[in-house]
Amino acid sequence: MGQKGLNTRPDTIAAVSTPPGRGGIAVVRLSGPDAISILQRCWRGADPSGFASHTLHLGWLVDARGEDIDQVVCAFYKGPRSYTGEDVVELSCHGSPWLQQAIVSRLIDCGARSALPGEFTQRAFLNGTLDLAQAEGVADMIAASSAASARIAASQLRGDFSRRLARLRGDLLDLGVLLELELDFSEEDVEFADRSRLVELTRTVLGVVEKLAGSFRAGNAFKNGVPVAIVGVPNSGKSTFLNALVGEERAIVSDIPGTTRDVIEDTVELEGVLFRFIDTAGLRESDDVVERIGVERARRKIAEAAVVLYMIDPTQDVARQLALMHRTVTDTRARVITIVSKADLTKAESTDGPAKAEGSVGYDTADDCFAISARTGAGISDVTAALVAIATEEYDPQQELIITNARHYEALRRAEAPLRRLLEGLETGVSADFLAQDLREASHHLGTITGDVTSTDILHTIFSRYCIGK
Amino acid sequence: MGQKGLNTRPDTIAAVSTPPGRGGIAVVRLSGPDAISILQRCWRGADPSGFASHTLHLGWLVDARGEDIDQVVCAFYKGPRSYTGEDVVELSCHGSPWLQQAIVSRLIDCGARSALPGEFTQRAFLNGTLDLAQAEGVADMIAASSAASARIAASQLRGDFSRRLARLRGDLLDLGVLLELELDFSEEDVEFADRSRLVELTRTVLGVVEKLAGSFRAGNAFKNGVPVAIVGVPNSGKSTFLNALVGEERAIVSDIPGTTRDVIEDTVELEGVLFRFIDTAGLRESDDVVERIGVERARRKIAEAAVVLYMIDPTQDVARQLALMHRTVTDTRARVITIVSKADLTKAESTDGPAKAEGSVGYDTADDCFAISARTGAGISDVTAALVAIATEEYDPQQELIITNARHYEALRRAEAPLRRLLEGLETGVSADFLAQDLREASHHLGTITGDVTSTDILHTIFSRYCIGK
Repeated sequence: MGQKGLNTRPDTIAAVSTPPGRGGIAVVRLSGPDAISILQRCWRGADPSGFASHTLHLGWLVDARGEDIDQVVCAFYKGPRSYTGEDVVELSCHGSPWLQQAIVSRLIDCGARSALPGEFTQRAFLNGTLDLAQAEGVADMIAASSAASARIAASQLRGDFSRRLARLRGDLLDLGVLLELELDFSEEDVEFADRSRLVELTRTVLGVVEKLAGSFRAGNAFKNGVPVAIVGVPNSGKSTFLNALVGEERAIVSDIPGTTRDVIEDTVELEGVLFRFIDTAGLRESDDVVERIGVERARRKIAEAAVVLYMIDPTQDVARQLALMHRTVTDTRARVITIVSKADLTKAESTDGPAKAEGSVGYDTADDCFAISARTGAGISDVTAALVAIATEEYDPQQELIITNARHYEALRRAEAPLRRLLEGLETGVSADFLAQDLREASHHLGTITGDVTSTDILHTIFSRYCIGK
Repeated sequence: MGQKGLNTRPDTIAAVSTPPGRGGIAVVRLSGPDAISILQRCWRGADPSGFASHTLHLGWLVDARGEDIDQVVCAFYKGPRSYTGEDVVELSCHGSPWLQQAIVSRLIDCGARSALPGEFTQRAFLNGTLDLAQAEGVADMIAASSAASARIAASQLRGDFSRRLARLRGDLLDLGVLLELELDFSEEDVEFADRSRLVELTRTVLGVVEKLAGSFRAGNAFKNGVPVAIVGVPNSGKSTFLNALVGEERAIVSDIPGTTRDVIEDTVELEGVLFRFIDTAGLRESDDVVERIGVERARRKIAEAAVVLYMIDPTQDVARQLALMHRTVTDTRARVITIVSKADLTKAESTDGPAKAEGSVGYDTADDCFAISARTGAGISDVTAALVAIATEEYDPQQELIITNARHYEALRRAEAPLRRLLEGLETGVSADFLAQDLREASHHLGTITGDVTSTDILHTIFSRYCIGK
């Protein structure tokens, strides 16, 4: 790859790579051509210049007066067989925040420079140990907060997506060769390329690009959580239900500051899938104007959701709630699940419906209607199962490739237009030089994903979002 | 050492060893006889059973279905050449909190057990790779928050203190051998041991023990910060001064919740020494009772302090402040520094005193009296220099050995009594069997420090305070 300046010898960078704060150990990473000579200046132990690649060495870091700073383990990776492709030294020190900073300072005194955010990974890309999509997979891996998002990130990191794109660009290259042939002999009005084969090839490429772009909705859902709107009148049990869901699944819950004061979002992992619950403000019942505002607000949130959980409180006016529900969830693409809350209060008798799963409360619940009691926990696991089933159906987690990155999505969408023009041109007999231009454009956009085509600006934008130390 | 149960094969423990939270990378540690076989069950890469000690291996961790969890680097240490003395595997994974937990869970599914706090270090002790004082040095290293405290922890970790204690116990052993000889031949009334040599040896040992115990005050100051009480009437500029001190030195400041609502503590590192500033409530001037309470409170804080900074506000009644100061700081062992604040407001003319250091404001300040302006920063660096000079003088940081651990202090103090009895007995001609008992008692107490003598309870108390993963 070697896209860095040809005339400048890179400097050697240092940073703490482990999470900030106090822990048992922390890791300070050093990467660059001077990694070993910098270490030599502050190391008491076996001579680092004799370290073989991929070996570990116990020693002491010493200050300028030769006094011990900390006992550390040095892991050495000889470039190019390292994360960055350069010589890399990783020092496992004791996890005092003071000590971590003291060690970075000492390395800087010995000739290193403080690493910028993402700079280690940027070097990995520039030195060709990772392509751009894989480098972005690293960031996704660090951000992973569910089994599904981790699996997609792992696939991207492994290069599955990059290989698929390489095949696509290979196909485009084949197309190009055939078209160029035509172009060279265009004055002779010879048509070397079999146009119907060209059409077929283009159609296949376009199909794959569209499919990949189409997977973004699923990818986004797995990465950021499948959006689930919880709607209902005030005190219908929305928050209590959410808490029960979280409690039962012993899930990880985190608060995402809502975009408006009215909306609270909680992410919960259920059976390996991350869900993002959007708790809309209650649908007001007091007067018509306020009610209309509440309905409008809920409708806007529903527009973003894949699933709507409509909570009905059987202790309030049910007819009114059903009417409100009808007005609120009309026209939504989202799947609507009706949940009758406070089942323990209404104590309905069991009907003659089919045998219920354990935890069910005796209502004759359908696929899209459940009775629950947040207090007793009854029915909660049925809702969980329904949510996971919908997520799995809507967003097939076993799908061959799922993209999660907005930049990739944009590039794929940009590749679609020239591919469509190419297809149309082939079918209508447009001359080969126009077709070749469309082809080059499509290839360019796909190339930006793996970084075969890139710019300093793009790289800066991508890597500046990384944490320092990676 | 081998103090663990002889009949039980230890299990294999796992935990995240790096600080909690998100980072570039995190390290999951696995220690025990099954470390390699557990790794084999969740590893895609070169066969772990072939790993040489102290080598690094890139691979993937896989879940029960063989799907990739994360790409990791495995560091392998073959026992006994490892931190714990057992086979140790350290997995550097991507630093997502979800991923870190997923990896620990996977290792547990494959046969590991969640490590208890400090359990890795406890195993290091039980397997003899660290003695108890060194193991405590590890915790001190992790807690280090200044150059001085890190240096003392490093010395302890390196075993300087343990070696000194081993020499002491060696001396006691020599004494014992001589005494036992006497004992064996006591019926013959033979005095094999030269009593004057025994007295000299005992005196030397006692002297070292006393010196070490005496270093605890300094050790404690370096570890927790040299205690500096700031005293003065309300609005005399105490907080502003503290902020200026912190700002000028770009020091690390952390809030320690005060033991009473009246007291705020800030720790600040100045030139490698940690200071703990105790900002006492202002000395009240309103009425006599309240004033007396304020003086009493300040006096109690001053009793703990090594230095008292007495702030005088030249814009308030100076005579009254000096009178209050006199009543407050009488009888203190602490060094008192008088600071006249708000020097920028009083604009005193320069006197003909000696040339001032840069930043001085023209007062003829003595060693123990400084004029400062927190607003302009004038005089602040003089105060800093004075504080560092006092700390260095009071607590010699170059002192051969400094103890910082209350447990060690207590053990040394407990060894003093039998050593004194021994000395007295030798001088007054007490029979050898009594002397031998005192000797054993002194030796026992010294032995508890390095863990040559220990109990499950002591170990539990020590290691349960560690973080998990260390």
